[in-house]
Amino acid sequence: MKAGKSSIGIGLLGIGVIGSGVAKVLLNKTDTLSRRAGIPVILQKIVENDLNKHGTLGIDTGLFTANYDDILHSTDIDVIIELIGGEHPAFEFVSQALNNGKHVVTANKELMAKHGYNLLKLAHEHNVSLRYEASVGGGIPLIAPFQQDLVANDITTIYAILNGTTNYIITRMAQENLDFSAALKQAQELGYAEANPSNDIEGLDAAYKLAILATIAFGTEIKMQDIYYEGISRLQARDFRYAQELNYSIKLLAIAKQIDDFIEVRVHPVFISEDSLLAKVNGVYNAINVEGDLVGSLIFYGQGAGPQPTSSAVVSDVIKIAQNIANGIVNNIQITPSEHKYTIKPMSEIETKYYMRMNVEDRSGVLAQISKILGDHSISISSVIQKESDPATKTAEIVIMTHPAKEQAVQEALKKAENLDIVKEISNFVRVEA
Amino acid sequence: MKAGKSSIGIGLLGIGVIGSGVAKVLLNKTDTLSRRAGIPVILQKIVENDLNKHGTLGIDTGLFTANYDDILHSTDIDVIIELIGGEHPAFEFVSQALNNGKHVVTANKELMAKHGYNLLKLAHEHNVSLRYEASVGGGIPLIAPFQQDLVANDITTIYAILNGTTNYIITRMAQENLDFSAALKQAQELGYAEANPSNDIEGLDAAYKLAILATIAFGTEIKMQDIYYEGISRLQARDFRYAQELNYSIKLLAIAKQIDDFIEVRVHPVFISEDSLLAKVNGVYNAINVEGDLVGSLIFYGQGAGPQPTSSAVVSDVIKIAQNIANGIVNNIQITPSEHKYTIKPMSEIETKYYMRMNVEDRSGVLAQISKILGDHSISISSVIQKESDPATKTAEIVIMTHPAKEQAVQEALKKAENLDIVKEISNFVRVEA
Repeated sequence: MKAGKSSIGIGLLGIGVIGSGVAKVLLNKTDTLSRRAGIPVILQKIVENDLNKHGTLGIDTGLFTANYDDILHSTDIDVIIELIGGEHPAFEFVSQALNNGKHVVTANKELMAKHGYNLLKLAHEHNVSLRYEASVGGGIPLIAPFQQDLVANDITTIYAILNGTTNYIITRMAQENLDFSAALKQAQELGYAEANPSNDIEGLDAAYKLAILATIAFGTEIKMQDIYYEGISRLQARDFRYAQELNYSIKLLAIAKQIDDFIEVRVHPVFISEDSLLAKVNGVYNAINVEGDLVGSLIFYGQGAGPQPTSSAVVSDVIKIAQNIANGIVNNIQITPSEHKYTIKPMSEIETKYYMRMNVEDRSGVLAQISKILGDHSISISSVIQKESDPATKTAEIVIMTHPAKEQAVQEALKKAENLDIVKEISNFVRVEA
Repeated sequence: MKAGKSSIGIGLLGIGVIGSGVAKVLLNKTDTLSRRAGIPVILQKIVENDLNKHGTLGIDTGLFTANYDDILHSTDIDVIIELIGGEHPAFEFVSQALNNGKHVVTANKELMAKHGYNLLKLAHEHNVSLRYEASVGGGIPLIAPFQQDLVANDITTIYAILNGTTNYIITRMAQENLDFSAALKQAQELGYAEANPSNDIEGLDAAYKLAILATIAFGTEIKMQDIYYEGISRLQARDFRYAQELNYSIKLLAIAKQIDDFIEVRVHPVFISEDSLLAKVNGVYNAINVEGDLVGSLIFYGQGAGPQPTSSAVVSDVIKIAQNIANGIVNNIQITPSEHKYTIKPMSEIETKYYMRMNVEDRSGVLAQISKILGDHSISISSVIQKESDPATKTAEIVIMTHPAKEQAVQEALKKAENLDIVKEISNFVRVEA
């Protein structure tokens, strides 16, 4: 970085929905942002392969280039904003940008979940900043609070709604008694779910974000293969009805816990008390509950996606870098490695309460047989609902809530129960968090 | 600041409940904090006038001194933590510390509300940092997010529960149908309210905090005399019953709004929709809803007081300063002055909906007379509840909800209504926010 710079040049990679939003903020608020940065912040170049998109969106054609080298190697560019998303070629571009001494701001959760730990080291080696506030929770400040404002804390637990698409679908299912496919269709029609929604609905998107947050929270690299994730497509309208009857809400939670030398990191649907604030987070909103040894329980709530909230995070990252450059500072915030050596707890060993729903023959002795199998696996029952005896098929639906039990024991017990003649179907099970 | 320092020395002013908590964190987590700071962070001295307190709390007597100069003038002290509270002598000590080139961390809301703007300038002149994250919202990160993470936004609105004592009292009143004095007594017994609770219950504490947040949010110094504040002692159990009937909760809100060239800053009880998340913030918790042009609506929630949460903020501020010293950086974050010139809107000119409760004679024509007075002041009624006709006194209670109206018109109309023969008493009125 040259000393005595008279302005900060920005290069933008990616001019999709998010990129257009960021470009507009940089162009429309240039004076305000420059004043806050203490130095003019100028969008110099937008890289876009598709020549048809050049000069669209009311943006001056002169800003567009199809050649990545125009920003990677230009001395006019100090900060590169990467908004192309996905692992490749984003990884190669970001690595090259850092190698070339450019500061980088990214909203790319997949990139940061898979390569963040090493890219931050690379940034450090080259004395530049890599900022990624927008990669988790859209405009909600999370990366900076976790890394800086909570630095005196040992973080013990994260419970987070990190995916707006699934939270929207779940909210509709709960409020309107819809089945999954109907709610998904509504979400797609409203643009809240993509045509191919699998990354969202199968929990992968939330798992990327959890990897990023947990890595900061615990000061140890949480890899994608460390995270168990499971989506919402197994949930049915009747699960929500039972949840309500039992005073629970169902949410897709990203969970990270540090207990002694073990870390649990998992994404799956969860029964949570309907009195908790997280239970009241509806629609496309995100909310992150973090617990620290000093601060206790904190919640951050806001819009986790969309061009405007994402611009808030991306552009604020850019201004922080510009402020530092203006002050002759480089502040390449690293993950502070923990002094503890943690082991990832395998999913089979986690312990929670469970909700189980099954379809059984409607005759006496059924519950006794099921209870026996659960008891044989050290699973104790806290309550039972039996419902909807169907005279035609002579079946009934049983819902069992358990006391805390080991995941492996529950999986084995459910397999055994499924083999009972009297059990027609294990319809569903959902983990329950206090 | 000397280059090449081998450790950061901390001086602590004030060893009350909060000071003891901070001292314990600095002493018990020294290794962890030093590792995160990148340099040893050592509590060197605690100033306490009362010699009887020296060596208490399990803290080495050798750390104590009764002489302020031992930290103000010591070359071993780099950062002074001010936890004595109140305006004086905190103002003089902090000014002197900054003048002497010491970094300062404070939790003092009164000091920062009254002198923050100038003290930040003083810090800048002396090239040191003044940090005050703990002054608002206890451990909830607010100062840093407002100043840094949301820097790309123009902040338009703050709705905040900033005082845990009053929120606890209000929660008990709402949930247990208690009157104010009974709920206050419970709060005092549990240590949530002080023996002299007036700063909390009259809204002054929340006003201090609002002055601090609004100054950052709008980039212009909001003075205490700019803020209208009013407490919760006028509220009665029946107001909460009517609120519930009308699907509202009552909260003591600190409100800041920027509309065109005007800023509104006020603290008073408010009817808010019971569906809003703020309505669900109960007990001693704080929550801050901030709206920005890009980020939309964000909520920060957590414990707004107590030694542990306050330590989280104070010690994190200390570590940030230590990190900067270790990296040879001074980062004395200033209020970025807005390019706009704002005028504070007088309370008489604000416009909200209103809840009015009055005791009237129970006979025909009463509502017509009251409606006429309201109509004469351009106040239109949205709904009316008439209740509890008392045959003995021949009185009834009327609750009126209005459409948006000017404060001044409402005050004048209520005075006129009070003079009607048929009106026994204007029992209460509360402003309603959407």
